[in-house]
Amino acid sequence: VNNRNFRIVVDAMGGDKAPQITVEGVCLFLQRTPMHCILVGNEPVIRKELEKYPHDKDLIDIVHTEQEITMEDSPWNAIREKPDASLLIAVRMLAAGEADGMVSAGSTGAVILSAAKYLPMIPGVKRAALGTIYPTMNEQQHPHYYSLMLDIGANVNNQADDLVHYAYMGKSYMQYVFGVKDPRIGLLNIGAEAHKGNAAMREAYKLLSSRPDLSFIGNVEGNDLVRGRADVIVSEGMSGNIAIKTMEGAGEAVKALAKMAMEKKLLWKLGLLFLSGGIKRVQNVASYEEYGGAPLFGFNKPLIKCHGRSSGYAFMHGLRVTSEVLEHDMTGRMRTAIAGFEREKTIPDRN
Amino acid sequence: VNNRNFRIVVDAMGGDKAPQITVEGVCLFLQRTPMHCILVGNEPVIRKELEKYPHDKDLIDIVHTEQEITMEDSPWNAIREKPDASLLIAVRMLAAGEADGMVSAGSTGAVILSAAKYLPMIPGVKRAALGTIYPTMNEQQHPHYYSLMLDIGANVNNQADDLVHYAYMGKSYMQYVFGVKDPRIGLLNIGAEAHKGNAAMREAYKLLSSRPDLSFIGNVEGNDLVRGRADVIVSEGMSGNIAIKTMEGAGEAVKALAKMAMEKKLLWKLGLLFLSGGIKRVQNVASYEEYGGAPLFGFNKPLIKCHGRSSGYAFMHGLRVTSEVLEHDMTGRMRTAIAGFEREKTIPDRN
Repeated sequence: VNNRNFRIVVDAMGGDKAPQITVEGVCLFLQRTPMHCILVGNEPVIRKELEKYPHDKDLIDIVHTEQEITMEDSPWNAIREKPDASLLIAVRMLAAGEADGMVSAGSTGAVILSAAKYLPMIPGVKRAALGTIYPTMNEQQHPHYYSLMLDIGANVNNQADDLVHYAYMGKSYMQYVFGVKDPRIGLLNIGAEAHKGNAAMREAYKLLSSRPDLSFIGNVEGNDLVRGRADVIVSEGMSGNIAIKTMEGAGEAVKALAKMAMEKKLLWKLGLLFLSGGIKRVQNVASYEEYGGAPLFGFNKPLIKCHGRSSGYAFMHGLRVTSEVLEHDMTGRMRTAIAGFEREKTIPDRN
Repeated sequence: VNNRNFRIVVDAMGGDKAPQITVEGVCLFLQRTPMHCILVGNEPVIRKELEKYPHDKDLIDIVHTEQEITMEDSPWNAIREKPDASLLIAVRMLAAGEADGMVSAGSTGAVILSAAKYLPMIPGVKRAALGTIYPTMNEQQHPHYYSLMLDIGANVNNQADDLVHYAYMGKSYMQYVFGVKDPRIGLLNIGAEAHKGNAAMREAYKLLSSRPDLSFIGNVEGNDLVRGRADVIVSEGMSGNIAIKTMEGAGEAVKALAKMAMEKKLLWKLGLLFLSGGIKRVQNVASYEEYGGAPLFGFNKPLIKCHGRSSGYAFMHGLRVTSEVLEHDMTGRMRTAIAGFEREKTIPDRN
């Protein structure tokens, strides 16, 4: 394969434990996938980390900078005041075509703002979306048990067209990165009926129903999310954010309960031991951040955002996702699908 | 006490298993609380159910009707086409002062619509809210482990003032029904900072912060809900609906896992047995519908909505809540608090 032709630029200083986890992630990734990686960050520190792991030197370049954006920085100020931060250099390299894809575990706000500043959008798309993969309880019915939800908080006021764009982008992602043949699309809403929700949701319901190239299953509600009724959940940013964080909180409650049980009762401790496989499954539903990040959807270049708390292993998954996005030309496929919708969207009766 | 002076009107035909559960609930309630109950519904059927339980005949009246609204009816049509449905007769009795409080486990849509049609609002309140009590993992820090979230779906477009009204109403409810001394108020949003969310949320943040008689703890996010960071979660209806249903779904996943474990592995089965106390706690977090219903907030008369799937025991709790709302004159306290806010709300700097 011609993997070596693709170049991934890595914001090596982004993330709670960067550059340790970014360097570890890159080395783990390169062991399986020979793709060119450009690490942007403090070169001496990166070189020192690189010494810890075997790696193919020919596949790694380093672009040195001493500025970095921390989790304490206000994203708005950081973008203005730290023009040479590793994140900004990486985004500009991506925009200039010096790299084909990008991964960052930096502050979500700063990643979104810098992408908005430097990257072109996919033609027709007006509002980028943040997506997340989360595991569901669904593996009995389907070969996979992950669903994708987008937007989970890049926007607070989505229009109907945005939600249709998210459906197409999410469909491509689940098809080409997760191998789901015909992804089922659901619209996160407050009831099953077509008239539920606000004006944007009602309009989106009509538009999604009218698209022959989308397997739209209708509205999904909060309690459908963990069940895995849909492969792609299209959501207004505020609703998606609240839903995903509520799932995270519920998962944390299960973990806290398990911890409490371990500390308190011998019988419970035994129970946990016997149940460890089961408990682990529930915990997995909680720790959605481990699932390799997700692209910022809507930009004309692939930019994958990993969770700030990513481990080296999780960051490796972010790189793996980027490589699959590149190999399947997912951005190109999204462009084509959205161009088709934009061309045809005035045809169906929208009343 | 002068409990006997209060009269509660019961929509005896509302609920998946009505009138069985409503009659059982009334009889259970009267065993502990001698308060006058008026059951509206099919008299012969109700009388037959009443034979099953010991009860004080002097405390029960029946208003006969043969119309009832089922879960299959469209709420809008039902209100128009079934003017003598048990729900509508009960609401009109409440509006006319023939009863002091009301309980229904009927269709949420029909209950809200009929209340909107017949009941006056608390002066100043423009949009009624549906609330729900849910259990949290918080009992270590606090004497109770329930929180109240409102609105959970009566509205799709709340204004800032609505959210402040909900804070006052929720505060009264947690104080007088749950005995929380100084309820902590949180605003459901997509981040901790004051500028997060849409325009209504940002404005509500300012208003809530400016009120000396509210213990406003700021924005809460989805993952704070199960933790129990706030006693009252004020939410825009769409966000609240999605959050509460997502919690329900996560809880169902835990139940499904437990069931799967029971069926599959002996070790898991043993584990579950040992863990039963712990698993039960997690399940409780899920089955929020068991917690006795919650008022429709904003009407000038107390109307408590129980879950459609209520058991007789859950319906009894709904009646108990109604009696406490009446005994503490909660509607009167809400009127006073909201009048205070409405009088003063133009004073603080709202820019």
